[in-house]
Amino acid sequence: MLVSGYFIAFEGIDGVGKTTQLFILYHELRGRGCKVVLTREPGGTRVGEAIRRVLLDDAHQEMSPETEALLYAAARAQFVSQVVRPALARGEIVLSDRFVDSYLAYQGFGRGLDLTALERVNALATGGLSPDLTILLDMPAATALARLDVDRQDRLERQSVDFYERVRRGYRQLAATDPSRYLVLEADREVEDLAAVILERVEVVLGLV
Amino acid sequence: MLVSGYFIAFEGIDGVGKTTQLFILYHELRGRGCKVVLTREPGGTRVGEAIRRVLLDDAHQEMSPETEALLYAAARAQFVSQVVRPALARGEIVLSDRFVDSYLAYQGFGRGLDLTALERVNALATGGLSPDLTILLDMPAATALARLDVDRQDRLERQSVDFYERVRRGYRQLAATDPSRYLVLEADREVEDLAAVILERVEVVLGLV
Repeated sequence: MLVSGYFIAFEGIDGVGKTTQLFILYHELRGRGCKVVLTREPGGTRVGEAIRRVLLDDAHQEMSPETEALLYAAARAQFVSQVVRPALARGEIVLSDRFVDSYLAYQGFGRGLDLTALERVNALATGGLSPDLTILLDMPAATALARLDVDRQDRLERQSVDFYERVRRGYRQLAATDPSRYLVLEADREVEDLAAVILERVEVVLGLV
Repeated sequence: MLVSGYFIAFEGIDGVGKTTQLFILYHELRGRGCKVVLTREPGGTRVGEAIRRVLLDDAHQEMSPETEALLYAAARAQFVSQVVRPALARGEIVLSDRFVDSYLAYQGFGRGLDLTALERVNALATGGLSPDLTILLDMPAATALARLDVDRQDRLERQSVDFYERVRRGYRQLAATDPSRYLVLEADREVEDLAAVILERVEVVLGLV
């Protein structure tokens, strides 16, 4: 049985099915009697939601890329101190929809900010906390974006397929630097098949089998 | 005459008279025909004011010190890209009520966050931009706080005199690392005398005499 907390992040570009898989795993683990906390970045706390509103406000078109990157880091700092660390300290499993890899992939590989600078900012935000396991759902950007409903496509259409393809390659590059911490899965397949592969790996790392 | 922009920051703990001196210098320079922009951190831009509201919201008592530090940096990033750099590029003089030194003195020396981590976060926010001249108004914390009106004392009383004394020592330590860039002035004296000393130095650095 689990003796201390465990932190799992789901990563990947919009449209790959992260949230679907997150919920399936959440209910599978709860069904096995695990204490599980379901969270998402950048929101999930009152301060984080307030920061999220500043980020998403259409009136803020003039926001600089550095400002955006620092606001995401600020929300992450609150998320780590208020949600993730307390839950891990209670021995719970934390499942997060996105974490630091999204930050590096979108702001760094996608928008072209310096990766080292972003990693240093992130060090203050997280105090060095990393997920124990990161599940990266991978899919060509054109396929992933076509899976989104029309409303979400509208909101995202400011960004090109090229942008998302850069982000996708960023995720894969991050995963390649530490293969033991990542489970990289080809995500363009049946939801149930993907869920089964994820559950199998998670059962092993949590000692549930 | 001035051929390129010049950036002057006023620093010091609450109550030393920064804003008073900032306005006097602003009008003196305008009277001499200089183009001057008056600004303040963390606000001064629409995005910055939105971030400032998140920072000052009384409902956000649970905000972590790291979140607060990253929000100040985010506001500074917007301030630098949208206000300071464009004004300097137009050859104007930028006068700012607080800049990076307040960040390091309050968040680092005051709240105890790691200075190196803060400097790295700041590097992303400013892209390495420093004031050409920083005017540090120095005064014992107890004296400075007693000069504030009662309303401001109420808002600040959560912080002890000890806190402000740590911040004050932090400012002095920062100034000692680069004496040529700082004008450190004992601020517990007549407003007009202090203004005259500041103007004398600024006229020299701007080549106005």
